[in-house]
Amino acid sequence: MNTIHKIIGTWALPLLVVSGVLLAGCQNGQQIGSSDDAASKVYVAPGEHDEFYGFFSGGYNGQLGIYGLPSGRHLFTVPVFSQAPVNGYGYSEETKAMLNTSHGFVPWGDAHHPELSQTNGETDGRWIFINENNTPRVARIGLDDFKTQEIIEIPNSAGNHASPFVTPNTEYISAATRFSIPMDDKDMQNMDVPIDSYKENFRGTLSFIKVSDKGKMNIDFQILMPGFDYDLSHAGKGPSDGWSFFTSYNSEEANTLLEINASKNDKDFIAAVNWKKAAEYVKQGKGTMMPGEHVRNYIDHEEGGIAKSETIEEVRVLDPRKLDGLVYFLPTPKSPHGVDVDPSGKYIVAGGKLSTVIPVHSFAKMKKAIENEEFEGEVMGVPVLNYDSILYGEVENPGLGPLHTEFDGKGNAYTTAFISSEIVKWDIEKTEVVDRINTYYSPGHLMIPGGDSQKPDGKYLVALNKITKDRYLPTGPEMFHSAQLIDISGEKMKLLLDFPTEGEPHYAQGIAAEKVIENQKRFYKLEDNGHPDAITSEKQARVERDGNEVHIYMTAIRSHFTPDNIEGVKVGDEVYFHITNLEQDWDVPHGFAIKGANNAELLIMPGETLSFKWEPQKEGVFPFYCTDFCSALHQEMQGYVRVSPKGSDVEIAYGTGQ
Amino acid sequence: MNTIHKIIGTWALPLLVVSGVLLAGCQNGQQIGSSDDAASKVYVAPGEHDEFYGFFSGGYNGQLGIYGLPSGRHLFTVPVFSQAPVNGYGYSEETKAMLNTSHGFVPWGDAHHPELSQTNGETDGRWIFINENNTPRVARIGLDDFKTQEIIEIPNSAGNHASPFVTPNTEYISAATRFSIPMDDKDMQNMDVPIDSYKENFRGTLSFIKVSDKGKMNIDFQILMPGFDYDLSHAGKGPSDGWSFFTSYNSEEANTLLEINASKNDKDFIAAVNWKKAAEYVKQGKGTMMPGEHVRNYIDHEEGGIAKSETIEEVRVLDPRKLDGLVYFLPTPKSPHGVDVDPSGKYIVAGGKLSTVIPVHSFAKMKKAIENEEFEGEVMGVPVLNYDSILYGEVENPGLGPLHTEFDGKGNAYTTAFISSEIVKWDIEKTEVVDRINTYYSPGHLMIPGGDSQKPDGKYLVALNKITKDRYLPTGPEMFHSAQLIDISGEKMKLLLDFPTEGEPHYAQGIAAEKVIENQKRFYKLEDNGHPDAITSEKQARVERDGNEVHIYMTAIRSHFTPDNIEGVKVGDEVYFHITNLEQDWDVPHGFAIKGANNAELLIMPGETLSFKWEPQKEGVFPFYCTDFCSALHQEMQGYVRVSPKGSDVEIAYGTGQ
Repeated sequence: MNTIHKIIGTWALPLLVVSGVLLAGCQNGQQIGSSDDAASKVYVAPGEHDEFYGFFSGGYNGQLGIYGLPSGRHLFTVPVFSQAPVNGYGYSEETKAMLNTSHGFVPWGDAHHPELSQTNGETDGRWIFINENNTPRVARIGLDDFKTQEIIEIPNSAGNHASPFVTPNTEYISAATRFSIPMDDKDMQNMDVPIDSYKENFRGTLSFIKVSDKGKMNIDFQILMPGFDYDLSHAGKGPSDGWSFFTSYNSEEANTLLEINASKNDKDFIAAVNWKKAAEYVKQGKGTMMPGEHVRNYIDHEEGGIAKSETIEEVRVLDPRKLDGLVYFLPTPKSPHGVDVDPSGKYIVAGGKLSTVIPVHSFAKMKKAIENEEFEGEVMGVPVLNYDSILYGEVENPGLGPLHTEFDGKGNAYTTAFISSEIVKWDIEKTEVVDRINTYYSPGHLMIPGGDSQKPDGKYLVALNKITKDRYLPTGPEMFHSAQLIDISGEKMKLLLDFPTEGEPHYAQGIAAEKVIENQKRFYKLEDNGHPDAITSEKQARVERDGNEVHIYMTAIRSHFTPDNIEGVKVGDEVYFHITNLEQDWDVPHGFAIKGANNAELLIMPGETLSFKWEPQKEGVFPFYCTDFCSALHQEMQGYVRVSPKGSDVEIAYGTGQ
Repeated sequence: MNTIHKIIGTWALPLLVVSGVLLAGCQNGQQIGSSDDAASKVYVAPGEHDEFYGFFSGGYNGQLGIYGLPSGRHLFTVPVFSQAPVNGYGYSEETKAMLNTSHGFVPWGDAHHPELSQTNGETDGRWIFINENNTPRVARIGLDDFKTQEIIEIPNSAGNHASPFVTPNTEYISAATRFSIPMDDKDMQNMDVPIDSYKENFRGTLSFIKVSDKGKMNIDFQILMPGFDYDLSHAGKGPSDGWSFFTSYNSEEANTLLEINASKNDKDFIAAVNWKKAAEYVKQGKGTMMPGEHVRNYIDHEEGGIAKSETIEEVRVLDPRKLDGLVYFLPTPKSPHGVDVDPSGKYIVAGGKLSTVIPVHSFAKMKKAIENEEFEGEVMGVPVLNYDSILYGEVENPGLGPLHTEFDGKGNAYTTAFISSEIVKWDIEKTEVVDRINTYYSPGHLMIPGGDSQKPDGKYLVALNKITKDRYLPTGPEMFHSAQLIDISGEKMKLLLDFPTEGEPHYAQGIAAEKVIENQKRFYKLEDNGHPDAITSEKQARVERDGNEVHIYMTAIRSHFTPDNIEGVKVGDEVYFHITNLEQDWDVPHGFAIKGANNAELLIMPGETLSFKWEPQKEGVFPFYCTDFCSALHQEMQGYVRVSPKGSDVEIAYGTGQ
């Protein structure tokens, strides 16, 4: 440990954490290009389109936000891990299985990192993945229809933060325990043990999810790890393809007041995983199949787009104490957060949030150190490499609280400094700062389209700021988070635009629009509608009773439902409306709501069938209507259901006036 | 009926409805000012603020969207009628009562029209109201903290669309049945009768909600009406103060296929209600107290901001067959949608969606016609006035499908034409079109800040377009709706900006930011926290068992929870986390989530206390953490709860390491 590390003393932390924002606030106005210039750069005139899609994690809203860049306009929100009353996601019969977990239905998720699928190290526009931190899960969203296609739970994990970063051909997605928990060596079960037995009993896991050609996810293996907190991850590329890197903090293995007790060690670790080696072990049947109950939810396209759940009971666990060459620890300064691999795949950059340098590790040196067994010790079977043996260099004066780094593909790296509220641009080969720009306030992640791939598109950078304060008109104590668009096409960075973002977009990814739009669905073809309760013409519309279930097979088309007068429903029935939107045109959804329902509406896309469950509680006549203004006669798109008392002799009857 | 009305024949409707969009699409590019000019007009540079708040209905998402104007940036979404996983609204113990109704908890609502409170006919920045169409309700949102303060249900109503338009001093809020239902004359109960007995049994109601000085809402009276569909509403002002106007369609009283059967009559009606007279009747004890069960939910600020529900059993009903001078029908062309009163209060403008003229009714003429009893007949005790007697003039050639009108305070009116996709500007006194501009596509409502008050701020107009199609990068079959910002400061309208809007913003209201920001809360004062489970220092933190209930009194402050290690919880317990955010600074929320919960997170504002219910199902140790990145050591803000099996003898214990 010969290199001097300027570690911020623990005593200074509270001051820095609290005052960082105020310091930055005084420097407003620097490096904003001329206002007219910036205005014209971000203006997307009516009728024109943005150049890039920005996919922003919704954070604690559990969803995925879509923004246009450079305009910063909020184009859409894809429901993923949380119920979405807006279109009935998580409420309708077709979608509610998407929110199943091994402990039942969970209405909410904490989404963190969107990650585009890659081919040959480049974003390919097929899918975007996103992780859930609280109930450990990973979701796959199709970029053809911007709908969540699949969600897989991660067993033997508590908090899935270092996820879902992909390998260069999307062979694997990473997932790792943020919080270690007591896991029984024999069966991986969460144990009822004293919390202060942390060092003895608590363990972590790193999980690798295999992705099939069609996108299907399954957990190929887990690696048992020491009881640290695993934070972020990135796969190697080019020369380092075959490896994945995970930061960890709390190498102190503290179980209480972590802000102090997990900030004591001078170094924590990056875990370098040789996933190609692990995959070989798996092929050889190595490791142990262990209990690991988890649920996989997926849209069954063969069955009309209905979400299904399957439970998987076991998972293969690899133990570094028993299998060599699987994982190594790279010491890295104090409580690292991000870990990023540059486009060449030669350099591994960590963000030590309490460090005043940015360490740049060399993959070649790491390989050599492994070969030469330049180890300082080991933790739970994981050899610890010598820091100096693997270090390429350290970037001095990178701002306070360096967190995350992305790349422009022109030899530069850009690192966020949370505490000093700035983005620092540095030359990778020279490990020297070449430019810096203030951000408002406290940037967490940053994003350059393709900026964590082998082919970054180094035109814009987005700073994802954690603190909003006075950036916009105030909206009471609760505010959206704030992003800032920065022009990085020239030598000096230029601040162009502030734009608000919903929820908490921890991370974002960007992609050139042209890579996505060609595969975009504008509606679903009726002829491909395989929903078992779909009807494809008004003639098939009908109402059927089956015991106390009533099934209404209904169509919607501008501007009427068929049938629109229904009688014979009784109090206590379970009524299912199966509604097919017969439209075959772009942007003609119909909605469905009925008075007296304790459920969210349906929003039915053209060619789609969705089902709504209603349990009428009172007798009377109840109107239903289209909730999406669909035509000049939308207000006329309504109908009635008559509900009679239990035991009444009113028979099922239905019709549509002509 | 001497005036010639160019009514679009029913045969032409499907063609127009479908082709309107395509026609408009061909005319792109007209009247867009120079691109640089528009760019600089809508650009709000980093560090600067928008000039206006725009409050946009979320439509089928049930919420209220906040946008900055002229930038079009989406600043925030206020949860109102739907569950909001983002901050636990409708999931947390404190907020779930806000979604109670007379038929139980309803997770979703269909929000339509935001309406700012007014004093002397001007928006005053105190509150904004918004209606719910499916489960008839009206909400009041405070503009001090942008939170929903109160929701009142409307009894004897099915669909609350013509709502919540205020009288000039916010004495009353309107609400009206969009869908008529069979109501028993004796007890107003929804009846189990054949749907085709519509003409005999179905009735509507117009409701008037009284608003106290502190904003408390209660239903003062309802007026029993014929079984039409009541659509929109506006109060009179100036000379017409004391009156409210409601459009109705389906004067045919059709019960099926309304797109044809409710489009047959040449005229439908505006109901003109003399609410000052009605209020007098109420004072005199006139009308009848009738059953009308409804729920009022409100944030109890005396009790620490916990939502409470009360049920009200009765409502006063006024019957125009028994009480004179209460309501009159103004015939108006074919299927009117909007009804708008100009700033002078002299003119009442309807939007006949199948009419090719815009009728302008004269309030003075109406009063005279009433005095002179120039009636053409009556419907259910409501006199029908003579069309020509009340007509001021007709605006010729206003575009196809005129829907809604707002005003600039300079003598001009602006009307949306849905089918021909344009905004038509016309001179009110002259009833002549003076300008027109294409919109993309199919505008419903439009908004000028203060544009339905006595003091419009005639600088910008926002067209709220119903069809989005190619306006933005595609997001699959489902898309946000689209708004367009138009400069109306000059003689000619100029299109400045397209911006997407979430959900379906039927209507919006705007207000100068300076009217709102002075009363804005940035956090809640801890000393005012009256929550019964609040603790105001870490010393008070504790865990208490009460039978199978466990209450955890917890604090959150950068960057730790107190306590953060908890033992003695058992499987089958009901665990309540009562968490007080001790921060007293702007924009420092803390979040709370625990692994294994089947609930949404909490997002706790500074000084606030919220409660999270958890029913642990399995033994083990479960991490909890802060979900909102709050400081450089946010990742360390975590803790653990140990869950032991039912019957275990592990005792309650808790602590925080130092």
